[in-house]
Amino acid sequence: MEGQKVVIIGGVAAGLKAAAKVRRCDPQAEIVVLEKGELISYGACGMPYYVAGDIGEIRELMSTPAGALRDAAFFRNVKNVDVRVRSEAIRIDRAGKKVTVRNLTTGQEEIISYDKLVIATGATPVKPDWPGVNLANIYSLWHPDDAVAIRQGLERGRFTQAVIIGAGLVGMEMAEAFSAWEIPVTVIEMQDQLFPGFLDHDMAAPVAKYVREKGVTLLTGEKVVRFHGEEQVREVVTDRRTIAADLVILGIGVRPNVSLARDAGLEIGPTGAIAVNEYLQTSDPDIYAGGDCVENTNRISGRKVLAPMGSTANKHGRIIGENLCGARVPFRGILNTVIVKLFDYTVAKTGLTEKDAKSQGYEYITAIAAGHDKPHYMPGAKLISLKLIVDAKKRKLLGAQAFGEGDVAKRIDVLATALTFGGTVDDLFDADLAYAPPYSGPIDNVAVAANVVMNKLAGVMKGISSLTAKEKMDDHKTVFLDVRSPEEYKQTHLSGGANMKNIPLGQLRKRAGELNKDDEIIAFCKISLRGYEAALMLAGQGFENVRVMEGGIAAWPFACEKGE
Amino acid sequence: MEGQKVVIIGGVAAGLKAAAKVRRCDPQAEIVVLEKGELISYGACGMPYYVAGDIGEIRELMSTPAGALRDAAFFRNVKNVDVRVRSEAIRIDRAGKKVTVRNLTTGQEEIISYDKLVIATGATPVKPDWPGVNLANIYSLWHPDDAVAIRQGLERGRFTQAVIIGAGLVGMEMAEAFSAWEIPVTVIEMQDQLFPGFLDHDMAAPVAKYVREKGVTLLTGEKVVRFHGEEQVREVVTDRRTIAADLVILGIGVRPNVSLARDAGLEIGPTGAIAVNEYLQTSDPDIYAGGDCVENTNRISGRKVLAPMGSTANKHGRIIGENLCGARVPFRGILNTVIVKLFDYTVAKTGLTEKDAKSQGYEYITAIAAGHDKPHYMPGAKLISLKLIVDAKKRKLLGAQAFGEGDVAKRIDVLATALTFGGTVDDLFDADLAYAPPYSGPIDNVAVAANVVMNKLAGVMKGISSLTAKEKMDDHKTVFLDVRSPEEYKQTHLSGGANMKNIPLGQLRKRAGELNKDDEIIAFCKISLRGYEAALMLAGQGFENVRVMEGGIAAWPFACEKGE
Repeated sequence: MEGQKVVIIGGVAAGLKAAAKVRRCDPQAEIVVLEKGELISYGACGMPYYVAGDIGEIRELMSTPAGALRDAAFFRNVKNVDVRVRSEAIRIDRAGKKVTVRNLTTGQEEIISYDKLVIATGATPVKPDWPGVNLANIYSLWHPDDAVAIRQGLERGRFTQAVIIGAGLVGMEMAEAFSAWEIPVTVIEMQDQLFPGFLDHDMAAPVAKYVREKGVTLLTGEKVVRFHGEEQVREVVTDRRTIAADLVILGIGVRPNVSLARDAGLEIGPTGAIAVNEYLQTSDPDIYAGGDCVENTNRISGRKVLAPMGSTANKHGRIIGENLCGARVPFRGILNTVIVKLFDYTVAKTGLTEKDAKSQGYEYITAIAAGHDKPHYMPGAKLISLKLIVDAKKRKLLGAQAFGEGDVAKRIDVLATALTFGGTVDDLFDADLAYAPPYSGPIDNVAVAANVVMNKLAGVMKGISSLTAKEKMDDHKTVFLDVRSPEEYKQTHLSGGANMKNIPLGQLRKRAGELNKDDEIIAFCKISLRGYEAALMLAGQGFENVRVMEGGIAAWPFACEKGE
Repeated sequence: MEGQKVVIIGGVAAGLKAAAKVRRCDPQAEIVVLEKGELISYGACGMPYYVAGDIGEIRELMSTPAGALRDAAFFRNVKNVDVRVRSEAIRIDRAGKKVTVRNLTTGQEEIISYDKLVIATGATPVKPDWPGVNLANIYSLWHPDDAVAIRQGLERGRFTQAVIIGAGLVGMEMAEAFSAWEIPVTVIEMQDQLFPGFLDHDMAAPVAKYVREKGVTLLTGEKVVRFHGEEQVREVVTDRRTIAADLVILGIGVRPNVSLARDAGLEIGPTGAIAVNEYLQTSDPDIYAGGDCVENTNRISGRKVLAPMGSTANKHGRIIGENLCGARVPFRGILNTVIVKLFDYTVAKTGLTEKDAKSQGYEYITAIAAGHDKPHYMPGAKLISLKLIVDAKKRKLLGAQAFGEGDVAKRIDVLATALTFGGTVDDLFDADLAYAPPYSGPIDNVAVAANVVMNKLAGVMKGISSLTAKEKMDDHKTVFLDVRSPEEYKQTHLSGGANMKNIPLGQLRKRAGELNKDDEIIAFCKISLRGYEAALMLAGQGFENVRVMEGGIAAWPFACEKGE
């Protein structure tokens, strides 16, 4: 194995990580990295923050923490890796173990041999064939050049109104970035909700409400038809309206770059990405593949999925490097974990959504628990809403979603870790998480959510989602029992009209006679903790049709009223 | 089971949680809570933040998030629980199933019967018998009255110099609180390090350095002998010096309150706390016990431990409540997880320390990894240092410690979750944690630390702790190879004198000839990532005696120098 020749196609995350790892275990190896572009090893995920102005120079995305530029010279000096930029691999000769490389500067072609080959060709943003899509100032934000162009335009005041197509990760990160420049932003999403790729409808709705409060125009269930303009884009035309725009971002997903692999006869998986085994070998055992161009396996469902993530690409790179050095390290798959900052909210997800669980035939139960991320008396305590999806028979966690101004990231990482081990709700309750008031309450939000699931599984709590509750509100048959204080009620309350009833929890035991045992009652409060108490209290008094509105007013995605 | 009479002794965390849970499952139960003190259900862990001035009123520690005071009336109205304050349980008659209660206001005694009894008597601060310990202004900060008295004294300028005895959680939280009032603070610790209860020496040393930089006088290995003063404390006398003080905090630990249980003939465990089975039953199956007065089981070692924590008490309460309602829910133990805010640092620990692992005979390996908590290019990226203790044979995590200005809490909670499931370092590397630049790097600190352990287990990396490195530095035989840039070196570097060698990583491949293959070499940088690269590079060139200083300069607890 010592002194082998390793050729790596792609010089961003997976490719260079594999190169570095091979060098560490095989000092004699000859390692060549072929990169089609000018730049290597850049932190693409940081680009929205560069555009927003949080990061001073694009160069920082390509530097080490100590400030050294991670360019070809760096990799040669530090890692003894031969990185060739503007060098496109155009053909793989598997029988002869050779790659044909075209120098994009000179146009010359060269054939280089390999003992082992790594394909890390990444992905490319989907570019729709809508008329006008090639007009200037329509960007995908996939390459640092895009980010630099957009930022320059913003700095020079050339962009005055932005339209973003696609309410996914890139789209919403850019919506926030443009808001930082105080230009109007419209997001157009074909599907009927924000973050259709990873949030359930009941979690997406309150986040969408928040985004709109932040001034973003969010249009869902709307399709772009064409762009107008001469040279530069001037208008975005949808199936419903025409929107003026001098800056457009296409954020409708990416496609793995597989043509080189396909042309070489390597197997392409059902997702359209390169198929690899658990050791990240392609159908040719001398060719490995990693990063955005390969398909992954979801650890919960076992299904093949597309999940281009920098974190996954780095893991692939390390494992490929290990295996190139003779190890047999498996990659055990992903959880489709996602996190995104959206103004002061964090929105995150891990594992399966409820949609996934339903479509894959799981017998599941869900719960939404809202609460402060640390004791309410601590300065800076903020709300988070947490949804768990749990296998109703095995009590195993299937997935989780969360949003809010509080520390969502910690809870999602705890839940992702629990998913890694096939944890149950009982395990979540038990976990001895770190408690001190600056960091969490004595019963962490994760344990509270687990408790709600346990209560529902035990039949002690009957929940109802805000969306179903809204339908019942519109039917005018159900009593909405708001058990907050009259002061809280006056400040803001649901628009339920005559069916709204405000009895503070502390008076409910005595005033239960004001309610009718034949009515369907939905109890709630700000976060529905008191709502749950109320439901239990009423159940104890013989009320049989009381449900708790999960997540409370904190998760209510519709308009509210003020006053009595 | 319905309609049973439950008597609960203790009205803070575990007791009231059990009461609430019983009420939820048994609407007919008669529930009496006996609390010796005036106050119930207070968030004792919040007191340091009240003293510091972060929290306005002490009342907030006893209120619900909605602002309702959690007093006896609240529990009666909302939960139909009969809470009696200033009511001390003085005798348990197990045969007759009766408790004798003394009303501390009237002095009258009453006998009440129970079907099930819960003991949640908590713990009491250790009060040493040093001369002068009863002088005024010597506090334990265990009860809200203490907190109020201290804060008043601070507000009125009556306290001008504070001495804290014990460098544990309470002591160091108070050190920070007093620093907020800008009075000089001295902490005296009998043992030879900060946080002797939960940090290893190599992690405690850099935290101690930080605390001293923040202006706290930290005296370790020093014993208090007596206090001087007339009525009020004026001086603290140790075995080495006399320190002026008008405010003293005793933070030398707590002792479980077990006399009532012991007098009733209930079994007391080896730790001195009440022994309970996994269902939290005492040796009398009709008597449960929870909270600070019972002993816990460490899930990793299986050993009985004292671990008074509000989070654990709440879990106990819920489980006792469940079991009182006929369930058989086990409490599966704790991880001795600890977290503490210390100025801008967070310091935390979960599972076993290296000390624990050594004394308990594990064959273990450790690693310290330092790094930013998110990509270095993101504003607000901060360093954290993370130590893992891992079973060398089974590769299982045994424990972890972390400190730094970055997001330590998230990483410790992830590690605590992994410990809950008996996770290995390989599992930690695999975990699909949430990645986006505002929250973490593409390779999270947890995965980086796991990688270091994997590299050490594979023999690819040889580490050395900063403390051992310092010994070698003082022997003048070892070469210290600092591979940072000359600019970084000039700014700050170790005081190694003639044995210090600064060769930037990018030049090392060419300049390796300046080093001698017979020398012992310790390579490092700011966080020792470049140090690791350097060691690999030298190993590739035939150097056989190169170690990496773990944690780098970020974890170096000794003085540094400036200049060339």
